[in-house]
Amino acid sequence: MISVEGTRLDRCTVAIHGLGLMGGSLGRALEGKVRRRIGIVPDDDIDAADIAVELGAVDEVTTMSVAVPAADIVVMALPVREIVEQAPHVAMQMVDGAVLTDLGSTKQAIVRAMERAPGGVHAIGGHPMCGRHTPGIAHADPELFRGARWVLCPTSRTDARAQGLVESLVRGVGAEPVTMDADVHDRAVAVSSHLPYVVAQALVHAIAAAERRDGIASSLAATGFAGATRLASGDVRMWGDILLTNEDAVRAAMRMLEDELSQMRLRFDDHDALVTWLAQGQAEREAMRLDGP
Amino acid sequence: MISVEGTRLDRCTVAIHGLGLMGGSLGRALEGKVRRRIGIVPDDDIDAADIAVELGAVDEVTTMSVAVPAADIVVMALPVREIVEQAPHVAMQMVDGAVLTDLGSTKQAIVRAMERAPGGVHAIGGHPMCGRHTPGIAHADPELFRGARWVLCPTSRTDARAQGLVESLVRGVGAEPVTMDADVHDRAVAVSSHLPYVVAQALVHAIAAAERRDGIASSLAATGFAGATRLASGDVRMWGDILLTNEDAVRAAMRMLEDELSQMRLRFDDHDALVTWLAQGQAEREAMRLDGP
Repeated sequence: MISVEGTRLDRCTVAIHGLGLMGGSLGRALEGKVRRRIGIVPDDDIDAADIAVELGAVDEVTTMSVAVPAADIVVMALPVREIVEQAPHVAMQMVDGAVLTDLGSTKQAIVRAMERAPGGVHAIGGHPMCGRHTPGIAHADPELFRGARWVLCPTSRTDARAQGLVESLVRGVGAEPVTMDADVHDRAVAVSSHLPYVVAQALVHAIAAAERRDGIASSLAATGFAGATRLASGDVRMWGDILLTNEDAVRAAMRMLEDELSQMRLRFDDHDALVTWLAQGQAEREAMRLDGP
Repeated sequence: MISVEGTRLDRCTVAIHGLGLMGGSLGRALEGKVRRRIGIVPDDDIDAADIAVELGAVDEVTTMSVAVPAADIVVMALPVREIVEQAPHVAMQMVDGAVLTDLGSTKQAIVRAMERAPGGVHAIGGHPMCGRHTPGIAHADPELFRGARWVLCPTSRTDARAQGLVESLVRGVGAEPVTMDADVHDRAVAVSSHLPYVVAQALVHAIAAAERRDGIASSLAATGFAGATRLASGDVRMWGDILLTNEDAVRAAMRMLEDELSQMRLRFDDHDALVTWLAQGQAEREAMRLDGP
């Protein structure tokens, strides 16, 4: 039983399963804020283990069967489908009272998998709303989470202590915890995060088609096209998992985009109406304060 | 007759009609490279005139009727529809042998208007493939054009001297001239430039609709959404002109995007097929070297 000690973050041993950009950044951000940070990488990935310790992302790296039973908090920082597949197996090896959370970008499938954890394990889904275009632990940044919202999605296995402990972890790395149901989260990020990726991919495929047609379109792409499509450089396996574990909401978001494209086309025979519609979009983006204060 | 002197850029007087971001940047970039830079602003815009001279964007600011007859080269740096409307009027005031060009983002409508210039005026359409999200002469940057492609679209009024002189101007500010027909240019930029703007606007309208539905989507937007929609902050009157002077090609580009969205959806029931399609997009973007070498 480690449930009493586990109520204070600085007394917790945290195991981070997956040491890419997100897991590595979390490890670095938790330096000095927890008792011990243990990294978990696949047995055959000795390189990742060495780099993680060298970079100070974790205090040690070991196997799942050693790390998980030693942890007060286990954070799964893997692609979504691996979290879904491995969460029940990880939970089985956790001690009574320990807390299981994750950094996955969709939450319904993960929360469903977490519901299958043994009774003594307290599970709560998590999703920090931040990232980088550059994957891998080499780009791990302890400041990655600062100022970001971090969504928490409780399960039936989330008690007040588990929620409080994970909120301490979130605040400890400079982020702001926001609690909501997994289905609400998934519908919202389908529009705010997954749709921009989908569109970036479609833009790149479209310019490739135009280039095959005229041999020129790609060469005229400039900074505007670069910024609009930067998401398309993201890890494709990670994104495949995200889209397919949130397929219904992503399909609905794609229909919303197509509806807006139709709304714009309806205004193509009236310059004033078109400019009014564009000005609405400009004002709505301004109101979101996306480029800072 | 100034046609002989006009063959060397450093002996030319250049009139820049319109002193926003693009016109102001061109003026600053031409400092020391031409005999004289004259800015043209509307009679009632004394502030813009003062700022332009203070910033060193031009040597003096005067009215169209004074500046245009004094110029070897007239550069129209206005929104596209104003260039179309004013080009014939400007051309009427130019001296024999002078060269008319522009910085407008679509070219067919402008080249058609330039064809109506008097016989002694040599006109050639131009479009530097660069820009900033921040409009206005206050953001004028003499380095804006460096390394950018600058499309030139000849008219029936373009002779070798006029083309050579404008190419000298383009190279003089660090850009690379690329000559093509106006219709080829317009079809290419419909995909590389106008479609990303259209999509950015549709994304903002979609998240505003989602926000009205769930009250959450906007608050979860992070750096990915910001980058994907930055173009939607652009000047709406300028963009309205661009879309409506290139409507057919923009509609075709929108259909290409919708086709690609459908192609993606077809792969939603097969994880491997989806990831393969996403990997194609990732590789095609990589091949475009949009983020530098």
